[in-house]
Amino acid sequence: MIVTCVHVYVKPDHIDDFIQASRLNHEKSTQEAANMRFDVLQHQNDPTCFLLYEAYESKDGAAAHKQTEHYLTWRKTVEPWMAKPREGVPYQVIAPEERGKW
Amino acid sequence: MIVTCVHVYVKPDHIDDFIQASRLNHEKSTQEAANMRFDVLQHQNDPTCFLLYEAYESKDGAAAHKQTEHYLTWRKTVEPWMAKPREGVPYQVIAPEERGKW
Repeated sequence: MIVTCVHVYVKPDHIDDFIQASRLNHEKSTQEAANMRFDVLQHQNDPTCFLLYEAYESKDGAAAHKQTEHYLTWRKTVEPWMAKPREGVPYQVIAPEERGKW
Repeated sequence: MIVTCVHVYVKPDHIDDFIQASRLNHEKSTQEAANMRFDVLQHQNDPTCFLLYEAYESKDGAAAHKQTEHYLTWRKTVEPWMAKPREGVPYQVIAPEERGKW
């Protein structure tokens, strides 16, 4: 199991656009067989900062996500709204260990 | 719904101790009524860096966690193993919006 925390920095005038595009990405991504979670979060003190919490069963599953049509559409759509490049931080899972608890 | 990402920096010789203590905290915390998730993650490239992904139904629920015996025990137990102070980052939830998907 692998979790990638993707930190996204959005231009202030495109916050709502980003939320809309990322809701779509969430809906499609959580339907991928290897996906465990795909949470979209907004920083409480800075609405231009977002966190995508992307949990997959395996590295292969996480890599496959980046080949999906919905990911590629999202990436292209949000590109002009980025204030600076995204940062992905990879984690391994300590708990919960059971797949069923994801 | 609220998510707090707690970044924890552990002294190298106490990584295993921290994992053991945090597994216990995970088990107890996920039994709290207001808890939605309490994931414990370890950075893939730096095993001294951990992330606690703490999701609660409400700010009150998140605050109540800090009054529980298991949290206070965890905090006291891990305190001497910290390389530097923890950092908590608060987020609001964009997706999933349904409580049942947490």
